[in-house]
Amino acid sequence: MKSKGLAALSPGAPLTPFDFNRRDLGAQDVAVEIAYAGICHSDIHQVREEWGSAIFPMVPGHEIAGRVNAIGSSVSKFAVGDLIGVGVFIDSCRTCASCQSGLQQYCVEGMTGTYNTYERDGTTIAFGGYSNNFVINEDYAVHIPSTLSLEGVAPLLCAGITLYSPLRKWGVKPGMKVAIMGLGGLGHMGVKFANAMGAEVTVFSHSSEKKDDAIRMGASHFVVTSDIASLKPLQKSFDLILNTVSAELDINAYLELLKLDGTLVVIGLPGKPYAVNVGSLLNGRRRIAGSMIGGIPEMQEMLDFCGQNNIVSEVEVIDAAYVDTAYQRTVDSDVKYRFVIDASTI
Amino acid sequence: MKSKGLAALSPGAPLTPFDFNRRDLGAQDVAVEIAYAGICHSDIHQVREEWGSAIFPMVPGHEIAGRVNAIGSSVSKFAVGDLIGVGVFIDSCRTCASCQSGLQQYCVEGMTGTYNTYERDGTTIAFGGYSNNFVINEDYAVHIPSTLSLEGVAPLLCAGITLYSPLRKWGVKPGMKVAIMGLGGLGHMGVKFANAMGAEVTVFSHSSEKKDDAIRMGASHFVVTSDIASLKPLQKSFDLILNTVSAELDINAYLELLKLDGTLVVIGLPGKPYAVNVGSLLNGRRRIAGSMIGGIPEMQEMLDFCGQNNIVSEVEVIDAAYVDTAYQRTVDSDVKYRFVIDASTI
Repeated sequence: MKSKGLAALSPGAPLTPFDFNRRDLGAQDVAVEIAYAGICHSDIHQVREEWGSAIFPMVPGHEIAGRVNAIGSSVSKFAVGDLIGVGVFIDSCRTCASCQSGLQQYCVEGMTGTYNTYERDGTTIAFGGYSNNFVINEDYAVHIPSTLSLEGVAPLLCAGITLYSPLRKWGVKPGMKVAIMGLGGLGHMGVKFANAMGAEVTVFSHSSEKKDDAIRMGASHFVVTSDIASLKPLQKSFDLILNTVSAELDINAYLELLKLDGTLVVIGLPGKPYAVNVGSLLNGRRRIAGSMIGGIPEMQEMLDFCGQNNIVSEVEVIDAAYVDTAYQRTVDSDVKYRFVIDASTI
Repeated sequence: MKSKGLAALSPGAPLTPFDFNRRDLGAQDVAVEIAYAGICHSDIHQVREEWGSAIFPMVPGHEIAGRVNAIGSSVSKFAVGDLIGVGVFIDSCRTCASCQSGLQQYCVEGMTGTYNTYERDGTTIAFGGYSNNFVINEDYAVHIPSTLSLEGVAPLLCAGITLYSPLRKWGVKPGMKVAIMGLGGLGHMGVKFANAMGAEVTVFSHSSEKKDDAIRMGASHFVVTSDIASLKPLQKSFDLILNTVSAELDINAYLELLKLDGTLVVIGLPGKPYAVNVGSLLNGRRRIAGSMIGGIPEMQEMLDFCGQNNIVSEVEVIDAAYVDTAYQRTVDSDVKYRFVIDASTI
């Protein structure tokens, strides 16, 4: 299938218009006319080859929202015209315990990423969502509720599910106190979800700049962490803390904020290991856990939840020509709260 | 009540015979004739003031097994002649959520330790179990099954419950794979418990010296970790790993051994923070958790479980005069697997 995209032709190169071919529509595939593609910070890391050897030319993008415009002969889950979302992976082994449980992101063979990898045939480069179209096996795509604004849906496919999954995993419900560290593309989704699940939400941010936004999104409290002493009165307060911050920080000061049996979930990937004081874990039977996006069933559950609660990401829609500028602004944390490319401009 | 004990009169001083008074028997108290008191490594840290400012004279000892020889007027839980155990704490606030849940070790006001602290009146020094007798509020003591050898029971009150509690908390059952890091006073209890709960048990030890013991205690596998490469084939193998080792080690090499949703529980208190690679947590939704002894209901549950499964600690019974030598041998890890003082020699 003929495709147009934005590609980095070499590590760190600017994104330029790029014509390429996707695989032809297989029996289980659906073809997607992409409407919007979100810009994730991980796109930038990979374009710049900051996460190890990468594959070029690279068409990034794993927050994809669009509409089905053709289906393979065996497709039963989608019809032409359906709204459709694709996230961080496009395939997996399908047979391991993780895949069988719908947790494809933890496939023992490794999930097949949406770009910067090869498809499971081992030879076809997977090109991502900064493009006009896409081909995806129906089992690895999800339905988008028609009531939501499509540009705000695109970031749900990575940023959204990354926050939704640990909130569900750790049982957030009314009466619980949840803190979100960092109010960016990830964190602002956490505030909206935790609030919709009935929790009392606190945002930790390094400055007071986003306080009004946080309250509007559903936070009950906003704590400026530039003075670490501001955390002290909050010790033993929280059932769950989600850390979306990848900058270096004193993780122990946050562990001390957890109640008995509380959990701090790390989502951002800091450059250095955390120095964890074991005493902070022992006292209160606390824990640190990891979480990585979500599987297909949970992505669908999240989108349905978003439809019911009218939740989308807050986005700045841009044209293709603006992507390099948007990359720099993302690195500078100068975006409220996610850039989304209007795919019609590609 | 007149008591004889072994005390350190100043930080790091040798333990010497010491006469003192315990509080008189209150209405809710029981008096205990101590039979055996275990030596815990934490006794040594406190005698040597390695864990911060300590209170001297100090009578250590929080692994206490004996027999009730008098009861207060309101006591209903014990009768004269009953076997009785006392562990790491003798009191707590009784009103916080932790205490109300039977998790007195996580009391928000702090549990009242068995020694090296003051009783809740704030003025009476709490003297521990290296002694001929004890006075304890009945709510903070447990019944010992009469079928067990009493000297092997004493270490259950700290070392035993420290391993039993996380095995229960994290749901160990048949079909699960559990690893125990370190086969000492703590670790050998973990092997016995996990085996009795039906798990397949692996022991990680720095040398092959204790392999036969580990197998005899119920381990199915024994891995020598002096060559860290020996861990590589075990990646993604374990549901639960209990780390009893307080020496420095590469915690990430062990995190990688956990399956999806696996947990590494830290029990030992290393001198330095752990350098935790967040990637090891993200991939597999793994977690690191702390655990600290257990509450009174769980201590009783553990002793009942030991009675049903004929589990005790493996001990070397010593006279009072040998305690200083035993301390040095404990520091040198030269004990199989716990020293227990015969209280009749005090």
